[in-house]
Amino acid sequence: MVGYVVYGRGSFNQLDEIIAPNRTDDLPIIFLVDHFFHDKALVRRIPLQGHDKIVFADVTYEPKTSQVDAVAQQLKDEFGKISGIVGIGGGSTMDLAKAISLMMNNPGSSADYQGWDLVKHHGVYKVGIPTLSGTGAEVSRTCVLTGPAKKLGMNSDFTPFDQIILDPELTTNAPVNQRFYTGMDCYIHCIESLNGTYLNEFSKSYGEKALQLCRNVFLEKAKWDDESDDQLMMASYAGGMSIAYSQVGVAHAVSYGLSYLLGTKHGIGNCIVFDKLDEFYPAGVKEFKKMVGKNKIDIPQHVTKGLSDAQFDTMINVSLGMKPLWENAIGKDWEKKMTREKLRKLFEQL
Amino acid sequence: MVGYVVYGRGSFNQLDEIIAPNRTDDLPIIFLVDHFFHDKALVRRIPLQGHDKIVFADVTYEPKTSQVDAVAQQLKDEFGKISGIVGIGGGSTMDLAKAISLMMNNPGSSADYQGWDLVKHHGVYKVGIPTLSGTGAEVSRTCVLTGPAKKLGMNSDFTPFDQIILDPELTTNAPVNQRFYTGMDCYIHCIESLNGTYLNEFSKSYGEKALQLCRNVFLEKAKWDDESDDQLMMASYAGGMSIAYSQVGVAHAVSYGLSYLLGTKHGIGNCIVFDKLDEFYPAGVKEFKKMVGKNKIDIPQHVTKGLSDAQFDTMINVSLGMKPLWENAIGKDWEKKMTREKLRKLFEQL
Repeated sequence: MVGYVVYGRGSFNQLDEIIAPNRTDDLPIIFLVDHFFHDKALVRRIPLQGHDKIVFADVTYEPKTSQVDAVAQQLKDEFGKISGIVGIGGGSTMDLAKAISLMMNNPGSSADYQGWDLVKHHGVYKVGIPTLSGTGAEVSRTCVLTGPAKKLGMNSDFTPFDQIILDPELTTNAPVNQRFYTGMDCYIHCIESLNGTYLNEFSKSYGEKALQLCRNVFLEKAKWDDESDDQLMMASYAGGMSIAYSQVGVAHAVSYGLSYLLGTKHGIGNCIVFDKLDEFYPAGVKEFKKMVGKNKIDIPQHVTKGLSDAQFDTMINVSLGMKPLWENAIGKDWEKKMTREKLRKLFEQL
Repeated sequence: MVGYVVYGRGSFNQLDEIIAPNRTDDLPIIFLVDHFFHDKALVRRIPLQGHDKIVFADVTYEPKTSQVDAVAQQLKDEFGKISGIVGIGGGSTMDLAKAISLMMNNPGSSADYQGWDLVKHHGVYKVGIPTLSGTGAEVSRTCVLTGPAKKLGMNSDFTPFDQIILDPELTTNAPVNQRFYTGMDCYIHCIESLNGTYLNEFSKSYGEKALQLCRNVFLEKAKWDDESDDQLMMASYAGGMSIAYSQVGVAHAVSYGLSYLLGTKHGIGNCIVFDKLDEFYPAGVKEFKKMVGKNKIDIPQHVTKGLSDAQFDTMINVSLGMKPLWENAIGKDWEKKMTREKLRKLFEQL
């Protein structure tokens, strides 16, 4: 788990002080910043020292292993070693920062480590500062990457951040649609985790809390305010913690296939899929549709229309490769229940 | 925060595997075990290797700085260095294990570090395995010690355990009274935290979850079963996390005075005090009395009867020394509101 957690409005202002004890000699700290902030005031608040550098992360598409390898190589070429990396942005930036940290100290390509417990060495000091709430990437032990063969995280004890700074002020100006899609990632996490077969009291406690916060933010409150940002940031954190002892389920397994092929971003991809999962999560899907309505969001339809058989096969292969997700969702005999034909029909509905 | 958390029934069986990567050369692991388990089967399940040693902790009274210093010195005399320390027991054993770990690497007496952020060096590798749920000592950044001048913890970033193993099976055979008193420590934490002025959304989320679990276990469930143990262990964990960004309040401030003078154990001391705090926590005290009734527990009365003025003064001094607790409970101007006279009257009621 993340060893150091700072939560509070304005805590971003403590960044310089927080990272100071982790600077090694005069090796730089790299600030990996979501390109969304390129011309925003937040960039000017980054406490640069010495050889520190801001690197903007292009998160137009989901993070790729090639992208991780390229940035890590570039940093090695330019600096040899670095003191650490600070990711500032949404879930993609969080995952990129974690992966780049690991690849500064592990040989080969990040694609070699897509899986469970394949990473062998600590990364460099890594800090996560989310500017969108919902993915739980700030606390998870994975960093989801699209590689040459699969979309799968580097799941390991070395993957979590050393430090996170949870400052709800940073999420204030998030675009409404994106905020919703990302918030729904958390909601969907919770439904998948609480309905999963892997559940224990640890995951249940966190999942229930995150779910309650999501409901408050997206259904019960009359309008969006500071408290909404505060609560959604905690929902994201608790939702991420819930996954520590559980797993996500059908929505994630299917949306991974979708985004592997089409590059659909994770939050919106989950929404597109979850919208059609009445069979697996009837109460959750009903409540989700209420949230969609209340927040006046359009969920894209027919995104798989006109795809070829080969393309459907690609999505099906990626999706069925997510074995722990399926097992959590529908039990040990999931392969009997979720056939290729059935999954094809589901993909066709999206 | 604690970096490595294992939660699950039977997870104690993984202890050997969990500590293996943290053994240094052939330096021993010290298992500090609550003396309650001296003749119990649990002791035979401890995975001793090489020079490892079981040390029984006498927790008849609350942990003392002199006790910590003596055990640390004994370990230095016998082994020079150790690989780490594993605390197995209730809150007192947790606190002793954390303090001894720190004193293996910090000079002087543990009394020198009673306060906030005075500890300068990492302790040795430390693992907490609670066998009673409620104190939150398994996740807190303190270890409460009674010293020559005060009852106060070594609060620091170096204090939390490196690893905790939360195995609800270990709490199955706890004596009913002690289980209740210790569980109420969590309940009282939550009431104090949720009614405090320091509260933020982080602490609120954890506090609300812990409170809900306490209510389920002590009020709603018809009888005690495995789920009760599972949930109370999570309540303790969440209650401890809630304190990370908040503080306890009046009950703890007053009960610290009581146990400093009389050696009253923390859980029962909190109950004795909280029982009389209608003025500060009216709804909480009402619910507490319901829990006491339903669980058929007797709360000791008149424990301060016949004490001398000097003894009352000692309790008042220790209690008023807990400034952050009072400030959290009744605000920045607490010194005007909680006079020595008023506090004396409160102590006289106990």
